Amino acid sequence: MTEPSGTGRTGGTGGTGGTGAFATAAAAVHPPDAGAAAAARQHHDRLAKPPGSLGRLEALGAWLASIAGTPLPPAPAPAAVAVFAADHGVHAQRVTTWPQEVTAQMVATLLAGGATINVLARQMGASVTVVDVGVAAALAPTPGLLDRKVRFGTADLATGPAMTETEARAALDAGAEVAADLVAAGARCLVTGEMGIANTTAAAALVAALTGRPATEVTGRGTGIDELTLARKVAVVQRAVERTEPGAGPLAVLASLGGLEIAALAGFVVGGAAARVPVVVDGFIAGAGLLVASRLVPEALSYCLAGHRSTEPGASAVLHDLRLTPVLDLGLRLGEGTGACLALPVVEAAARVLAETATLEAAGVSGTQPNGPGRGA
Amino acid sequence: MTEPSGTGRTGGTGGTGGTGAFATAAAAVHPPDAGAAAAARQHHDRLAKPPGSLGRLEALGAWLASIAGTPLPPAPAPAAVAVFAADHGVHAQRVTTWPQEVTAQMVATLLAGGATINVLARQMGASVTVVDVGVAAALAPTPGLLDRKVRFGTADLATGPAMTETEARAALDAGAEVAADLVAAGARCLVTGEMGIANTTAAAALVAALTGRPATEVTGRGTGIDELTLARKVAVVQRAVERTEPGAGPLAVLASLGGLEIAALAGFVVGGAAARVPVVVDGFIAGAGLLVASRLVPEALSYCLAGHRSTEPGASAVLHDLRLTPVLDLGLRLGEGTGACLALPVVEAAARVLAETATLEAAGVSGTQPNGPGRGA
Repeated sequence: MTEPSGTGRTGGTGGTGGTGAFATAAAAVHPPDAGAAAAARQHHDRLAKPPGSLGRLEALGAWLASIAGTPLPPAPAPAAVAVFAADHGVHAQRVTTWPQEVTAQMVATLLAGGATINVLARQMGASVTVVDVGVAAALAPTPGLLDRKVRFGTADLATGPAMTETEARAALDAGAEVAADLVAAGARCLVTGEMGIANTTAAAALVAALTGRPATEVTGRGTGIDELTLARKVAVVQRAVERTEPGAGPLAVLASLGGLEIAALAGFVVGGAAARVPVVVDGFIAGAGLLVASRLVPEALSYCLAGHRSTEPGASAVLHDLRLTPVLDLGLRLGEGTGACLALPVVEAAARVLAETATLEAAGVSGTQPNGPGRGA
Repeated sequence: MTEPSGTGRTGGTGGTGGTGAFATAAAAVHPPDAGAAAAARQHHDRLAKPPGSLGRLEALGAWLASIAGTPLPPAPAPAAVAVFAADHGVHAQRVTTWPQEVTAQMVATLLAGGATINVLARQMGASVTVVDVGVAAALAPTPGLLDRKVRFGTADLATGPAMTETEARAALDAGAEVAADLVAAGARCLVTGEMGIANTTAAAALVAALTGRPATEVTGRGTGIDELTLARKVAVVQRAVERTEPGAGPLAVLASLGGLEIAALAGFVVGGAAARVPVVVDGFIAGAGLLVASRLVPEALSYCLAGHRSTEPGASAVLHDLRLTPVLDLGLRLGEGTGACLALPVVEAAARVLAETATLEAAGVSGTQPNGPGRGA
């Protein structure tokens, strides 16, 4: 439980060259407390159950301990979901059958509490904040809506850069700011959410460019497109990746391929890590944001948990690249933060079990003496 | 949503020849409402999200609808966990390194609220009831403990029948009664739990006998035994299965191999199905109980959900045999009902999403008209 002091700074401005909220957050990301994690694992072996018998729950407990800096971490609650919304110029390439205005319509639904993520967040006792970082429509001020619009949708990534690096930095800043504000307001766990028609195309392009995988491997059917549309989408992704300069840094790749909500998600993840709270990451779009964050501020990954495995092939590519094992695998592909939100009770359970289960000694269980069963028995 | 009337009765006394609570429950198990399930699936396609994008959550919603007999099922809460506790004569064969008295010690820990299942049940708002169906010690009356002791532990299944068929019937009755009582007291979901040192040996023997798999395939390390102990355990399971008469009915197999808590779990499952509530089934021991229940009253399976995949190999054998896909796969092997309890929020979410998510029409989402995207778009 020795807190590293003065070591482990991981990037100053996170390689963005900026001076805003993201750069500040990037400079504040330190490695989590390995000593607290080890102490949590030792405590688990003293609890009234066979050692190791809680599997992933034990590992999650140690992870929470490393973030909280204490062997018995508090329950990571309440959680806060931030849903970053933006539009995509690549919609013009007919990569989806949903009209672009559905982004704004779903923002209204989110604000009215009627989207699936609202339902799940209510169940889990989590708040939902909607952040407009790039919806292609003027949105009326509404309670629960944060206006951090960088621009009215990205440019078409099929024909040129989705945005400028300055705009990418602004979206990163927005995400980092929202994370800091939510934690300042009492959140003890952050959940990534997003909404943006056509954003699986941008996410696929980013994942292809940052992992080096071919477009065919990381491009999926999104909301459920047919063969012809999928072929068009794959071609768009492939051309966009080819257009992106080889050897370009992660910020340049992010600006080239977009989207604004993915950039904001990357900032949000780094902001959560800077604030030392666990960040539960949703599926494919959030995974692309996490991939960007991990390239800009590698240590931020230590604060992140993959909430679930989306059925989108690019989501599994991200999990594989970042060596993450998701908590849930339930065939979801909705986004909004839904899969991550469903994982929250498991994360909370990991903390509660550590803090509340009786020890073998307190339970008076035989075999806690030298001749008893103990570990490996 | 047509409720079958007078059809689908599945077994009278469930093949036990008894006249008690189990026989009554077995006669009351009817097929769930397929019409309500279909209506739930149709409703999902009208919600403000791409059709099918919630994966397993949509299937679970339809399943809950079929049990509730209505397309928008109420949340299956509160849940009630019943922990059936018993001892095993086969402990004498040194198939585990834990002393037999740990069963009674863990019962005391359960009653004091210090076991892992207590922690998880508190988090999920579920009650915990401990049922002594065969602990090999006299237990003092305590609030929260039900005395349904059939005998002081089973006989050693390595050398002869674990119990008589009359005793097996008594344990089945105890389980069915507890299920009925919990539902009468307000439970809207049942969770299987158990505690019994050496019970993975009895479960392995039952699974081998009822699925026809070799002992080596279904016998695991339980609480964490070494190679030598595992070899002894496999040999014990193999001999016990060979001793059991070929072609014996499920009740005879149950009596031959035990254990009392497994018999009670089988009764509990059938009792839950009779009361038309969802039953969330835990890992290996509960899986063995479910296997017995499915052989006695096949339709009971329609009311059961596999909460998680235990790391015990015999658990996967049961899931495969019964064609069940568990909700969670988190490497647990504790029992007590812990894995099933962790799955409860997902089950509850399935009901909430159906009832609370806005429809495409209500959300004013474009593309709900004939020329819009719709299913498969």
